[in-house]
Amino acid sequence: MTTALRSIKSLAPLLDRVLVQRIKAEAKTTGGIFLPESAVKELNEAKVLAVGPGGLDKDGKRIACGVKPGDKVLIPQYGGSPIKVQEEEYHLFRDHEILAKINE
Amino acid sequence: MTTALRSIKSLAPLLDRVLVQRIKAEAKTTGGIFLPESAVKELNEAKVLAVGPGGLDKDGKRIACGVKPGDKVLIPQYGGSPIKVQEEEYHLFRDHEILAKINE
Amino acid sequence: MTTALRSIKSLAPLLDRVLVQRIKAEAKTTGGIFLPESAVKELNEAKVLAVGPGGLDKDGKRIACGVKPGDKVLIPQYGGSPIKVQEEEYHLFRDHEILAKINE
Amino acid sequence: MTTALRSIKSLAPLLDRVLVQRIKAEAKTTGGIFLPESAVKELNEAKVLAVGPGGLDKDGKRIACGVKPGDKVLIPQYGGSPIKVQEEEYHLFRDHEILAKINE
Amino acid sequence: MTTALRSIKSLAPLLDRVLVQRIKAEAKTTGGIFLPESAVKELNEAKVLAVGPGGLDKDGKRIACGVKPGDKVLIPQYGGSPIKVQEEEYHLFRDHEILAKINE
Amino acid sequence: MTTALRSIKSLAPLLDRVLVQRIKAEAKTTGGIFLPESAVKELNEAKVLAVGPGGLDKDGKRIACGVKPGDKVLIPQYGGSPIKVQEEEYHLFRDHEILAKINE
Amino acid sequence: MTTALRSIKSLAPLLDRVLVQRIKAEAKTTGGIFLPESAVKELNEAKVLAVGPGGLDKDGKRIACGVKPGDKVLIPQYGGSPIKVQEEEYHLFRDHEILAKINE
Repeated sequence: MTTALRSIKSLAPLLDRVLVQRIKAEAKTTGGIFLPESAVKELNEAKVLAVGPGGLDKDGKRIACGVKPGDKVLIPQYGGSPIKVQEEEYHLFRDHEILAKINE
Repeated sequence: MTTALRSIKSLAPLLDRVLVQRIKAEAKTTGGIFLPESAVKELNEAKVLAVGPGGLDKDGKRIACGVKPGDKVLIPQYGGSPIKVQEEEYHLFRDHEILAKINE
Repeated sequence: MTTALRSIKSLAPLLDRVLVQRIKAEAKTTGGIFLPESAVKELNEAKVLAVGPGGLDKDGKRIACGVKPGDKVLIPQYGGSPIKVQEEEYHLFRDHEILAKINE
Repeated sequence: MTTALRSIKSLAPLLDRVLVQRIKAEAKTTGGIFLPESAVKELNEAKVLAVGPGGLDKDGKRIACGVKPGDKVLIPQYGGSPIKVQEEEYHLFRDHEILAKINE
Repeated sequence: MTTALRSIKSLAPLLDRVLVQRIKAEAKTTGGIFLPESAVKELNEAKVLAVGPGGLDKDGKRIACGVKPGDKVLIPQYGGSPIKVQEEEYHLFRDHEILAKINE
Repeated sequence: MTTALRSIKSLAPLLDRVLVQRIKAEAKTTGGIFLPESAVKELNEAKVLAVGPGGLDKDGKRIACGVKPGDKVLIPQYGGSPIKVQEEEYHLFRDHEILAKINE
Repeated sequence: MTTALRSIKSLAPLLDRVLVQRIKAEAKTTGGIFLPESAVKELNEAKVLAVGPGGLDKDGKRIACGVKPGDKVLIPQYGGSPIKVQEEEYHLFRDHEILAKINE
């Protein structure tokens, strides 16, 4: 999706949506040689930038998201809504689609 | 969808529907040169014009919409019901389909 | 659907069904010239003629329809059950399928 | 469906099922000329012959059918279970599939 | 399905399952002439042989079946699990799939 | 599915799963002649070897399985998860998929 | 899915997800002869490495997972999310997808 946003920070996800940015793989080998872009594999790791206030349960109560801004997470291979802001790509996932937290 | 409405203001969305109008991309480059229409990309940003009273939960209570008229929002790439009023195009989305609010 | 009804008034929708008739577009231009029938576009505006008593919630209570006879409404592009009575066409929609009220 | 029933009256629908017989269109024009069978259009009007005791809600309570024997109703174009008894055709619909009552 | 059962009586349906045997059409015309097997149409009438204790509602309570052994019923054209015991064919249906009782 | 288990007895089904082994058809005719393997039909009868503690209802309470180890049951023609242990084949079904108990 | 994780231990599954590693079949025959890799069959046995805090029921309460780290389990033939960490492959399953515990 194309936007004219000046900064991703102006985006406040709704309901149980989680805004993430995929972590880029190193474009250098461990030996220090730069890899051509086509050889850099896409990772399924992402940084959480913002979370919505949570979805609503059947009584209208909010269910808080399981992740928070700053969390490093494992995202699914497919799905999510891609968003492009100033040449950078981001994704919106539903909270329950995030597979795991990464604790490092 | 074609209508013979004189003004979009006469439209009052029902249930959890949200009436939005897509924000048009600048038809000028930052350098001030006008772009031909085919080069102007469609944005997924929209302005909320009107919201319904909210959907009904299982006990018949209204669940208020998460956005309000005047809000700038991120809408999904596909979906929604297009409405044409006096050569302008609008869309109706369900409240839960709106991806994020844009705070600027 | 074909019927042998003498009048549409004899039709009483069941549950949350809403009986509407599409509003016909002007077959004249604003300058007063009559348009051939093929040039008259179908509008998605309709007049509500009758509504059912409402659907049943999970406890068997009626949920009243959100529109009432006389309302002018925006109907979806597709869907609904078409009914033909004496050469006129009508549609039955479920209450939640009606997109918006038109206040004029 | 083929049956060896002697009379349709021996059929007692279960749950929320409604037994109807389609009303046959006049095989004569208003001027009194008999139409060949292929020119007689099938109507979507039907007479209710019998109704089940009603479906069960989530607490096991019966939800009575919205139509009763003798009612004239509008049935959907498709669906229902056809039953053949002694060369006559009947249909079983679920109560919520019946579109409208016809009051004449 | 093939079984090595000696008698269909050893089969006790589980939950809301209903064991039925289709009633065979007369292989003789009313005039007494025997019809070749291919001319005998399959009927949708069946005799109930056994019923399960009933399905479970959301609180774990049993919902008794709407038919009982000995009932003559109308079964759907398709569906059900066929069972073969000693060259005879039987069917298992869910209770809610049985269309109507036949009272004669 | 392939396993390296030494004994099927080490398998404890989870939730409402039921571990069964299909009963083998006699490879001999009633007259005592041995049939070639291709002529032995697969039966839909099975012996229950182990059952899970039961699925969870919406309040998190266990719903006990309707069959127990030692029961002889009728299993559906298709479905279930096949498991191979030491050249023998077993199946895991959900409790509600088991069609009937066989009392002999 | 590709990751740049240094250790699988940094992965904390969310909700009712279960992180497992498939148990490798012996690449040696019982007689001690090493088998070529293509002859080693994939097993459906796996070791549980980590479990999420549990999914949420309709009242927002956690439903604890039925398996725990260290458990040996039977996993389904298909499904699950594959994760690659440092040349080793792992899988994430939902708790209810795990078929059985293996007690040895």
